[in-house]
Amino acid sequence: MSADELFYLSIAEAAARIKAGALSPVELTQAYLARIERLDSQLNAYITLFWDEALAAARQAEEEVVAGHYRGPLHGIPLALKDLVYTRHVRTTGGSRVLSSFLPEEDATIVGKLREAGAVLLGKTGMHEFAYGPTGLNPHFGNVRNPWDAARMTGGSSSGSGAAVAAGLCAGAIGSDTGGSIRIPASLCGIVGLKPTYGRVSRYGVLPLSWSLDHVGPMTRTVEDAALFLNALAGHDPKDPASAREPAPNATAALGTGVQGLRLGLARDYFFSRVNPEVLAAVERAVALLEEQGASVHDVALPLVHQASFINSPIIQGEAATYHLPLLRSRWQDYSPEVRLRLLPGLAVTGSMYLNGQRARALMTQQALALFDQVDLLISPATSIPAPLIEEESITLDGRTETVSNALTRLARPFNMTGFPAISLPCGFTTGGLPVGLQIAGRPWDEATVLRAAYAYEQASPWRQRRPPL
Amino acid sequence: MSADELFYLSIAEAAARIKAGALSPVELTQAYLARIERLDSQLNAYITLFWDEALAAARQAEEEVVAGHYRGPLHGIPLALKDLVYTRHVRTTGGSRVLSSFLPEEDATIVGKLREAGAVLLGKTGMHEFAYGPTGLNPHFGNVRNPWDAARMTGGSSSGSGAAVAAGLCAGAIGSDTGGSIRIPASLCGIVGLKPTYGRVSRYGVLPLSWSLDHVGPMTRTVEDAALFLNALAGHDPKDPASAREPAPNATAALGTGVQGLRLGLARDYFFSRVNPEVLAAVERAVALLEEQGASVHDVALPLVHQASFINSPIIQGEAATYHLPLLRSRWQDYSPEVRLRLLPGLAVTGSMYLNGQRARALMTQQALALFDQVDLLISPATSIPAPLIEEESITLDGRTETVSNALTRLARPFNMTGFPAISLPCGFTTGGLPVGLQIAGRPWDEATVLRAAYAYEQASPWRQRRPPL
Repeated sequence: MSADELFYLSIAEAAARIKAGALSPVELTQAYLARIERLDSQLNAYITLFWDEALAAARQAEEEVVAGHYRGPLHGIPLALKDLVYTRHVRTTGGSRVLSSFLPEEDATIVGKLREAGAVLLGKTGMHEFAYGPTGLNPHFGNVRNPWDAARMTGGSSSGSGAAVAAGLCAGAIGSDTGGSIRIPASLCGIVGLKPTYGRVSRYGVLPLSWSLDHVGPMTRTVEDAALFLNALAGHDPKDPASAREPAPNATAALGTGVQGLRLGLARDYFFSRVNPEVLAAVERAVALLEEQGASVHDVALPLVHQASFINSPIIQGEAATYHLPLLRSRWQDYSPEVRLRLLPGLAVTGSMYLNGQRARALMTQQALALFDQVDLLISPATSIPAPLIEEESITLDGRTETVSNALTRLARPFNMTGFPAISLPCGFTTGGLPVGLQIAGRPWDEATVLRAAYAYEQASPWRQRRPPL
Repeated sequence: MSADELFYLSIAEAAARIKAGALSPVELTQAYLARIERLDSQLNAYITLFWDEALAAARQAEEEVVAGHYRGPLHGIPLALKDLVYTRHVRTTGGSRVLSSFLPEEDATIVGKLREAGAVLLGKTGMHEFAYGPTGLNPHFGNVRNPWDAARMTGGSSSGSGAAVAAGLCAGAIGSDTGGSIRIPASLCGIVGLKPTYGRVSRYGVLPLSWSLDHVGPMTRTVEDAALFLNALAGHDPKDPASAREPAPNATAALGTGVQGLRLGLARDYFFSRVNPEVLAAVERAVALLEEQGASVHDVALPLVHQASFINSPIIQGEAATYHLPLLRSRWQDYSPEVRLRLLPGLAVTGSMYLNGQRARALMTQQALALFDQVDLLISPATSIPAPLIEEESITLDGRTETVSNALTRLARPFNMTGFPAISLPCGFTTGGLPVGLQIAGRPWDEATVLRAAYAYEQASPWRQRRPPL
């Protein structure tokens, strides 16, 4: 394989070669760094790059593999971190000017796990300011551009991770997801993004946006890679108060077992309404393909999801404002006006508004849990639209105008509220050549079935690892 | 034994006789009902009595026992319920005029468990209005009086349960505890009150005050009875979102194993400061007795507990106001002015105030958990004062004046915030003849060690089952 194709190896493929001694982690890392050097000025996926440290980690991995100390599927694999993940003594900006010179004292728990797995960390990727800035825009570090069309956004807030994975600027990346921020850029960039069950992956050392909604998870080019990556991240961490003691089974174990007998639920009146027609058509074809593979399709209803945005607002606003209040006081001038305007109303959320939000959310979650008596998975588009232009602010669907931000989060956000695992994976392209994302959500702690269905679809579909025109 | 002593049998004693066929549940129930008829006009422990239903349940229990279908230690035992526990088609007032004719559609989960265990339910006991009214006072159903001195209060909010257990008007009673409301009346009435670990006992069908602080538990005359009663109440209930899946071991199993080797922690600068001197002396003697029995005593420090009341306020205020808002709107005139004045400020608690309260509470809990590396139990007075006069509003200790409410809750409340199990049991009397309560708190889920130490103390002390002068 020529060096200019190494950066499109999946993690699983690269790992097999590294393990077999057929691929050097140094060679692989150099291929990614060269690719970054060539393309990142166009895409702006990275905020910070670890040139020397990455090569040093790659050399160490190579030595270990040669010496027979192979650590597992992430050994020697070049990965990226969304820039809200703490890296010891390396700046962690949260996409903000406020933290532009913040040097954490220690690594996030997941960074420790990735280092332990032998991964090569290439750098920190771009994101909306504090994961809360206007969709697609970052006034401090510049806007991230979509590898499929540089005039378009990658969604957010894990914007840079989405672009980097899609463009072959890393083999996989960490994203975080409070209202869709892993799945939205995955959908818009034609990659795989997995939001695990709430509590599955530690958030210790990850800047919070809204701690009862925040999730951390993998963004990759294949479903198998997402499972391998999840294996390295999952597990209890006493340092994250929301981290669960639930055992973390091997996420790759059931990958190849198909969808025969799986019951797919479609809550059409919410998840298939006000959706771009080309997105809708691609998702319907994906459902049909899964049905051909042996799954059955069932209409289900989730009435409270229609109130999701209303229920969610006081929760995210109240928590975000509470976290930011001390920083707003001390660093007011370093926040962008847009983020200030999003944070300030949160200070006026009353305790009762917040608590009623959490209570309604609990009811919605109960209602959603009950659906799993009838079905095994919930299927929908990941986003109601393909990648918008960077400057686009609103969109009209079925005669109703809404903000781009709402169109992007509307179908993803309910699974932050319920905490269920949910994945976005490529399921086709618009006539304009933009990727479409299929969302599959499952029972709490049942990433295995989500990944199994995603894998079955990916293997049967023609969209596996399509590459953007770069 | 003469009929006028049956009502002072412990649950364990009565159960042994019932099981052996030596005591009829009907006879026992009649003894309690006669005692109630004679004394409750003085004490006002009950809001509602189940005369016919209690006798019917007693007859059924008798028949079952005679037929060889003995259900266990609560079979045929007459118990009472704080009047915030839902009883199907029987009014559940919460001590309020608002709910004075509220007839629940179903039993609380714990009521179902007690019926299943064969218990005889005698009635519903008095309490502060919505567990939030002024200490010792109830304008709707009258004040509950202390069996040791009718001019004095029983504390609250499980006022009637405390009086009824102490006066022999039931063999045990359900209480609830948001800031000490099981342990305070236990302390003031000279009985045993156990607040189990948060999540141990279902609160489904129990009127909430502040759901992140509310606990339900047993009030009895002996430690063994508290353990037997807990066995019947504990266990996961999917209907209570905070109910834990933690297994509920047999609480009586370790009762007789003594305190040899147990490490007792005393956080003196908080839990032994601003305490009535006679209370302090009694608790010091209790600690010395436990030391004689083989426990070791250690000074520990819990700095954040000094902020407990400040941290707690927005939590209880915010949650209580959120629950009551719809009722305040529809039934404003039926709330007492005092409870309105306590509830209304809660509507002005902001989400950030509430969330910062919960965050600070989490830090305090972490700090408290860390103490269990050094010790096995935390020992203190349960209340800083013995039973005050009913009309008393403030108290001066060590030159500082505080409300009676604060003096009563100050030492109990921290364990609502941490969720740790905590018991109050009698440890002596003031020269004026008022009971003093010893508080023992333990690790989460470790009621067993709490009960074991309490039992060891009770067996070695001269205070076991002292009876008020009635």
